[in-house]
Amino acid sequence: MPNVEVLTNGQFQAVYNVLSLALASMGATTVFLLVVMNRVLPRYRIAVAVSAMVTLIAAYHYFRIFNSFSDAYVAVEAGAPGVADSFALIQGVGFNEGYRYVDWLLTVPLLLFETIAVLALPAAVRSSLLWKLIPASVLMIVLGWPGEITAEIAPKAIWGALSTIPFLYILYVLFVELSKAAKTQPNQVGKDLAGLRWLLLATWGVYPISYMFPMFGLDGADSFVYRQIGYSIADVLAKCLFGLLIYKIARVKSMYDDPQFAAVEMKEAPSSEKSSA
Amino acid sequence: MPNVEVLTNGQFQAVYNVLSLALASMGATTVFLLVVMNRVLPRYRIAVAVSAMVTLIAAYHYFRIFNSFSDAYVAVEAGAPGVADSFALIQGVGFNEGYRYVDWLLTVPLLLFETIAVLALPAAVRSSLLWKLIPASVLMIVLGWPGEITAEIAPKAIWGALSTIPFLYILYVLFVELSKAAKTQPNQVGKDLAGLRWLLLATWGVYPISYMFPMFGLDGADSFVYRQIGYSIADVLAKCLFGLLIYKIARVKSMYDDPQFAAVEMKEAPSSEKSSA
Repeated sequence: MPNVEVLTNGQFQAVYNVLSLALASMGATTVFLLVVMNRVLPRYRIAVAVSAMVTLIAAYHYFRIFNSFSDAYVAVEAGAPGVADSFALIQGVGFNEGYRYVDWLLTVPLLLFETIAVLALPAAVRSSLLWKLIPASVLMIVLGWPGEITAEIAPKAIWGALSTIPFLYILYVLFVELSKAAKTQPNQVGKDLAGLRWLLLATWGVYPISYMFPMFGLDGADSFVYRQIGYSIADVLAKCLFGLLIYKIARVKSMYDDPQFAAVEMKEAPSSEKSSA
Repeated sequence: MPNVEVLTNGQFQAVYNVLSLALASMGATTVFLLVVMNRVLPRYRIAVAVSAMVTLIAAYHYFRIFNSFSDAYVAVEAGAPGVADSFALIQGVGFNEGYRYVDWLLTVPLLLFETIAVLALPAAVRSSLLWKLIPASVLMIVLGWPGEITAEIAPKAIWGALSTIPFLYILYVLFVELSKAAKTQPNQVGKDLAGLRWLLLATWGVYPISYMFPMFGLDGADSFVYRQIGYSIADVLAKCLFGLLIYKIARVKSMYDDPQFAAVEMKEAPSSEKSSA
């Protein structure tokens, strides 16, 4: 898709600041998750470590996206000096959006891995779920890419539709098959798991909506700005908030599994029967 | 708001050095808090970890603010070579103040989180306080932004007034509701908590005062310099000093909760009856 040639000052600042916000969020979440990783029982640490890798990979990509964006445009001062009236695309530089797809190709399978890992399901069940989810997620990202780079409506619609098939299959596995497998989870974990899935659905839903902007005739500077803001906010929620929820589930399950751990970590064990046992 | 076009040598140096001071403080506080995090009982570590994330995020933003400021101006040598007489804004670069708002959007909710987390209140009370404080703080920052970027007085006053509503609500929750919830805290913690709240009120008060400068007709280079210095000092107090106070409260509470921990951490246990027991 061709880059937008001119952005107003406000449009440029909005994209610039939201990219920086995403970078800061990803970096801080990475450090936080690594620092608190040992505050859950060993069996849940892999899920927290993988969550930190997702935000680390995303921090790297946002660093690249931020630099690519700020290098691609130059301020144009038509009136008072010191006040940019607009920002113009520099000939021969270009803003690289490919980073986003590379990021998703790495992080989306890892997000599905951490979702399954935190449940500590029996090995056979976990393995079967991962063999369904991970190939489907790779297929979803790969099929979306040809549609993203074309400006034409027909191929965009076809690749978008093809990419939707594995997306729907992932939802089926998460909402139907995973529910059966996760029936035996403690009550609070059941609620958090439901929250996790809805967060995934809500944030992943932003990507196809942004993808379809050009099909609705939204393809100028405004559409570009909304897409960047939408992708960035969705990424922060889908990776940082998601990772923190994974950590919360790991904490709740650690305390549920081991009342002694709960007694050390909190003033009391979660329920009085347990602490008196 | 347009950037200031010319700064005297002294004005430029003052802003440059105070931004660097803030960056150094944020970075060092982050490392310190992470290093000493395990010197409190496990139940208080989340508050110390989140305090470190606040200063980490702020360190990132001060790094960006510092670079943005020093890239935006060029030294003008009118007299003796090697002596800058003034600093002029470079055409087409600009100093980005948006970083401050992005920083507050992330750190202010986290500051409120650490304040509640360090008290180790019952889960239901903690959750209820956080559900009041965090949305209010996000609203406060978001409503302040349109007023910050405009140079006109009327919209500035309206957005400022709207932003004040959630600010007053936060103060009400912290000074009234939190007091009730924190009644059972040990004596020293009660005093430290009072200190924490007054620090928060005093430092957060700097932001609306700086915000109102242009309404008092203060809008030249001097006002810019005072605003940068005011924001930076307020940030150092509100984040570094605040984080260190959180750590102190966590230490006091750890020793109060667990005399054995106190005996290891200090030469004597806090009270003689306890050490003789």
